[in-house]
Amino acid sequence: MRMVDAIEKKRDGGELSDEEIRWIIQGYTAGSIPDYQMSAFAMAVYFCGMSGRETAAMTNAMSHSGETMDLSRFGNLSVDKHSTGGVGDKTTLIVAPVVAALGGKVAKMTGRGLGFTGGTADKLESIPGFQTALPIDAFLKQVEAIGIAVVTQSADLAPADKKLYALRDVTATVESIPLIASSIMSKKLAAGARSIVLDVTVGSGAFCKTMDRAEALANEMIGIGRASGRRVAAVITDMDVPLGHAIGNALEVQEAIRVLRGEPCPDLRAVCTELAATMLSLCHGWELAQSREKVSATISGGAALNKFKEWIARQGGDTRCVDDFSLFPQPSCSRDILSPQAGCIAAMDTEHVGAICVSLGAGRAKKDDTIDPAAGIYLHKKTGDFVQKGEHIATLFATKSDGFQEAESALLQALTWSTSALEPHPLIYKTLQ
Amino acid sequence: MRMVDAIEKKRDGGELSDEEIRWIIQGYTAGSIPDYQMSAFAMAVYFCGMSGRETAAMTNAMSHSGETMDLSRFGNLSVDKHSTGGVGDKTTLIVAPVVAALGGKVAKMTGRGLGFTGGTADKLESIPGFQTALPIDAFLKQVEAIGIAVVTQSADLAPADKKLYALRDVTATVESIPLIASSIMSKKLAAGARSIVLDVTVGSGAFCKTMDRAEALANEMIGIGRASGRRVAAVITDMDVPLGHAIGNALEVQEAIRVLRGEPCPDLRAVCTELAATMLSLCHGWELAQSREKVSATISGGAALNKFKEWIARQGGDTRCVDDFSLFPQPSCSRDILSPQAGCIAAMDTEHVGAICVSLGAGRAKKDDTIDPAAGIYLHKKTGDFVQKGEHIATLFATKSDGFQEAESALLQALTWSTSALEPHPLIYKTLQ
Repeated sequence: MRMVDAIEKKRDGGELSDEEIRWIIQGYTAGSIPDYQMSAFAMAVYFCGMSGRETAAMTNAMSHSGETMDLSRFGNLSVDKHSTGGVGDKTTLIVAPVVAALGGKVAKMTGRGLGFTGGTADKLESIPGFQTALPIDAFLKQVEAIGIAVVTQSADLAPADKKLYALRDVTATVESIPLIASSIMSKKLAAGARSIVLDVTVGSGAFCKTMDRAEALANEMIGIGRASGRRVAAVITDMDVPLGHAIGNALEVQEAIRVLRGEPCPDLRAVCTELAATMLSLCHGWELAQSREKVSATISGGAALNKFKEWIARQGGDTRCVDDFSLFPQPSCSRDILSPQAGCIAAMDTEHVGAICVSLGAGRAKKDDTIDPAAGIYLHKKTGDFVQKGEHIATLFATKSDGFQEAESALLQALTWSTSALEPHPLIYKTLQ
Repeated sequence: MRMVDAIEKKRDGGELSDEEIRWIIQGYTAGSIPDYQMSAFAMAVYFCGMSGRETAAMTNAMSHSGETMDLSRFGNLSVDKHSTGGVGDKTTLIVAPVVAALGGKVAKMTGRGLGFTGGTADKLESIPGFQTALPIDAFLKQVEAIGIAVVTQSADLAPADKKLYALRDVTATVESIPLIASSIMSKKLAAGARSIVLDVTVGSGAFCKTMDRAEALANEMIGIGRASGRRVAAVITDMDVPLGHAIGNALEVQEAIRVLRGEPCPDLRAVCTELAATMLSLCHGWELAQSREKVSATISGGAALNKFKEWIARQGGDTRCVDDFSLFPQPSCSRDILSPQAGCIAAMDTEHVGAICVSLGAGRAKKDDTIDPAAGIYLHKKTGDFVQKGEHIATLFATKSDGFQEAESALLQALTWSTSALEPHPLIYKTLQ
């Protein structure tokens, strides 16, 4: 077999056999297939796509390119969640303890990565004392004991995906549905959960800007998971506006705690309820309506917050911060942004808002950047809200005030105004499974 | 400027600026743009094409990536010819002395490369004593003195093309009209001739299998040459059947000498007359009909053969071989192939015939293969000929007889038979300029 022939076959619209795809992924991981052939192949896939069978074979080969987690001791109860990303997305911090409080087993390995804020591990580390580096044994024991553990990736999961993603990132071959789907799912399959819920976001702050693309990605990922015998569902949720009000690491943990306390944050609570309910339906076989009720009761009854505290304590975190937010890292500076006009906020360019957060220090633009856990934005007003001239729209938080002027004008530019009220936007578009 | 953005722009169907293209080629040649980005770019070009302006800019950048030949001392008389390749193509050996005998200045640098037989340099080296390695000074002095010199590439012409072609060869990105056109023309522009005639072959033994593709390639190359101020014409010629009867290095030189002697070889003579006449039209400004007459007279009067002898002598070759073919390297073995049936040869799979020649040792399959100058095939019968059962169709020549059995059955398989006469096939389809 020669790689040039495989590239040509794909380039000419042909379908590769499972064996050919396995050979490509194994050769690429081992280094016998060079980057320059793999990038040409990725570009051919960008243009010609891959069949469901090809995508499943590729995902399977990538998921077996390194270590895989064995969660069989948890039977059908192991359950994972993955979001395709967004601004203000702190759902894992809420969903994981809720599901664990209701008997699901959430054994989550998470990355840091680039993004508008840090990854889930970075967010958790804003809790004083919280440890995200845990050996695999301790990780599994914790899940066994309390139903939940979230750690930075300690096993070498899907190294083929890591290598291929880095290549795609610099060769303009990221935006291909089969390649995105196989990248995400190879890590999820290697992570071992029996059930997987995919939060596929759509809108100005999401990777998928249109519903068509979001549905295509969701269906591709469901197909892959099924082909590997997993239970998979995808919830398509709105990311045309940031989720919740807080964007930034410590800020988001605080907002998650508020939701777990039962304090009002309608959009975030609704999305978390749907995701948690879907996870519970998959791992317990419950009806979705029943799942939703149980989720609500678990939050209102305090069991979810207790599970959160138990989890924090187990990973070394200071549980007093749940009741005292002054124990979180505090920003040295803040700036209130006042509305320059009266009117209704018709839209927020959400990706733009995320970029402002990075500029304040809340996220990484480059791999080695340091995260400022206290930095971020709190949005007092969001899309659909009526605002008076001079009213608070947002507050910026950072260690230095240098960037505030630029951040303020960028934030105001991200807004579109209207004089009349808007039709309310759906939060949860649909669930596919 | 970032290469990933340039790839994305091309991938999305955008048109790159001249500056962007120059930056890409310079960066790739210097090594600051890695192979894996260039191969993704080449695949994006494969799918999205390039505008005439983009192709011209790319060719220009590649032609200036290394040394360029300065032939300005020859004014408008410097003239070059390039063929897109075929089986039995020995036209340079005939056309070059004809044009030189009529005042054109043929300063030709030629490669060895892979192919059905060796390159022009390999063919010439089958003449005892012939030297193809000549310093640039001596090369130019020879052209000044006798109007003709053909040497292996001693200047570092268009190194960007060399590097890019090697990459395209292993990433399934060869078959792209703008990339092929810019590859060929970058070398031709760097080689410095004022006038360039392109022999674009079409048919089963050619790179272009269809007339549409041949015309597209011809027009693309003409546009590039014009944009650089050269006089360019393209002759589209048939390669659905090997050109002439001889395929193999020494065999082809002998056939070329026969044509220069005025002996009959209608198809080869016709194509050479058209190419030489087109070259003379460009460099002298003669009418094509007048050029053709002069070419005929130069051959029949013996001036072309004399020029050939003068050329051979000047480059150290034994001119006695012109009159005594026994001085050429002789094959140790030969095998006559007899017709298994009576009928008319309706078609020959010409690429297939070329591949048989390589198997006999006449061409290189890998870069370091040695050429056997005496190996090859002499076709007694070609497409359109009527053959009796048991009549000679072809003779195979090689150093060892091991491969004869396989070569014979492959050659017979390459033939299609008919019971009735064929419409004669045109040899020269059209001239574009």
